[in-house]
Amino acid sequence: MSSSTINLTQEIDVLDERGRASTISIPAERPLTVYVDKRELVTLMTLGANPEALVLGYLRNQRLVRSLDEIESVQVDWSVDAVAVNTRHGIADIAARTAKKVVTTGCGQGSVYGGLMDEVDTLVLPEQASLRQSVLYRIVDTIRTQQSVYKQAGSVHGCALFSDDGSLLYFIEDVGRHNAVDAIAGMMWLAGMEGGDKIFYTTGRLTSEMVIKGAQMGIPFLLSRSGTTQMGHMVAEKLDMALLARCSGKHFLLMSGKRRLIYEPHLFGDALRTA
Amino acid sequence: MSSSTINLTQEIDVLDERGRASTISIPAERPLTVYVDKRELVTLMTLGANPEALVLGYLRNQRLVRSLDEIESVQVDWSVDAVAVNTRHGIADIAARTAKKVVTTGCGQGSVYGGLMDEVDTLVLPEQASLRQSVLYRIVDTIRTQQSVYKQAGSVHGCALFSDDGSLLYFIEDVGRHNAVDAIAGMMWLAGMEGGDKIFYTTGRLTSEMVIKGAQMGIPFLLSRSGTTQMGHMVAEKLDMALLARCSGKHFLLMSGKRRLIYEPHLFGDALRTA
Repeated sequence: MSSSTINLTQEIDVLDERGRASTISIPAERPLTVYVDKRELVTLMTLGANPEALVLGYLRNQRLVRSLDEIESVQVDWSVDAVAVNTRHGIADIAARTAKKVVTTGCGQGSVYGGLMDEVDTLVLPEQASLRQSVLYRIVDTIRTQQSVYKQAGSVHGCALFSDDGSLLYFIEDVGRHNAVDAIAGMMWLAGMEGGDKIFYTTGRLTSEMVIKGAQMGIPFLLSRSGTTQMGHMVAEKLDMALLARCSGKHFLLMSGKRRLIYEPHLFGDALRTA
Repeated sequence: MSSSTINLTQEIDVLDERGRASTISIPAERPLTVYVDKRELVTLMTLGANPEALVLGYLRNQRLVRSLDEIESVQVDWSVDAVAVNTRHGIADIAARTAKKVVTTGCGQGSVYGGLMDEVDTLVLPEQASLRQSVLYRIVDTIRTQQSVYKQAGSVHGCALFSDDGSLLYFIEDVGRHNAVDAIAGMMWLAGMEGGDKIFYTTGRLTSEMVIKGAQMGIPFLLSRSGTTQMGHMVAEKLDMALLARCSGKHFLLMSGKRRLIYEPHLFGDALRTA
């Protein structure tokens, strides 16, 4: 596997409302064309921070590859904006399996091949998984203080994976939040990590695609500083997944899987002092 | 053409950080499967506010249909979450033309068939089009006071089209901002409207796909309350399109096509009083 790096921001000259010139940073956005066994599959528009994990997670979340063992190599070459993925035995019926499309509404990546909703009924999240309110607050605070491209240049989404004590495992940014979640799926794969005792955070909205991807990774908790949509909520309810939206400071709205949150009323005093 | 309506929001029960129950509205998100001449093309995840215009604009912005004359009928049927588009003479090579994909980073729709960037070089925006600062402020204020699903339920993006005196022509919301821009393209088509003297506003980021879609509609001005990306900026520079980001109150950042904005220094006094 390659381990490529590239500039994530660019400086541009702008004028403000009084015609005053200044220089600001904006996030990179570049095409990355994915070739699987020399066949062109898709072009992902990406920030470019984690291309190898992105491509692996994309193949995983599109259910084109079921196991990391199927992958022989992943080589990113930014000089041609391309990544070459070689599989051990090819992907059966890849043309047919990529023909049907769902263009998703989520803030980001978008295209999901057909049949995704069919799989939702087969997914099961761990019955016993629960989240303590104090861990939730630790996560929100960790995100708040995280160094990021967003703070420097704006216009990117961040996704993060946390352990059940609130320790940060991965933090990924991309111009599309679906790229960010795919890259986290790729990182989890590379680390052989299961999702059942993890917590997923996104700066973006919890649309159906985000909820389904979280479920595919086996993660029972999805947190967002933003809100949810009707279908995201419906899928989460069906899976008994805890959606926590509008997470900001001490505030949140628990939207589904409500039994999974362990309220800790002793935190109220702190909440009042620090809100 | 059908003229379908459907609920745009749903009420759900939530718990806040102190376990207090309340009811909030969230935006609808539903699949709309597009059949062209009885062939399944794509499933769009949408709020559902403007399905006919959305589908027309999608076909237009994907460059699958070049003229409204090619369309015989558009019939939305929410009972099966489907829209049947009939063309007069079929779409030549539709299978080949939809095989290559670009999965975009924009906050929203996402999938754009290949070759999009090739077309950028062929686009030309009106040389003389300019925007007065006072018109810009009228537009920002109109958006601020607009009734919207966003104000009621959050988690949607809005796009709007304005005339060159700042009058609102169309305001469209969707769970994906790319749906919203496609729906505006559809409305413009239905009205036989050109983009050369129009101004486009989006609540979302000005990524490459948004900039390219704006250019395809022939619109020289793109406004956003959010920011831009490197490729969005690059494409706009190439096309001499004015990008105005971070529009909020009297503030904005003019990022490209700078000659097109007519500064009006006499507004400064007002700006100081009302900021």
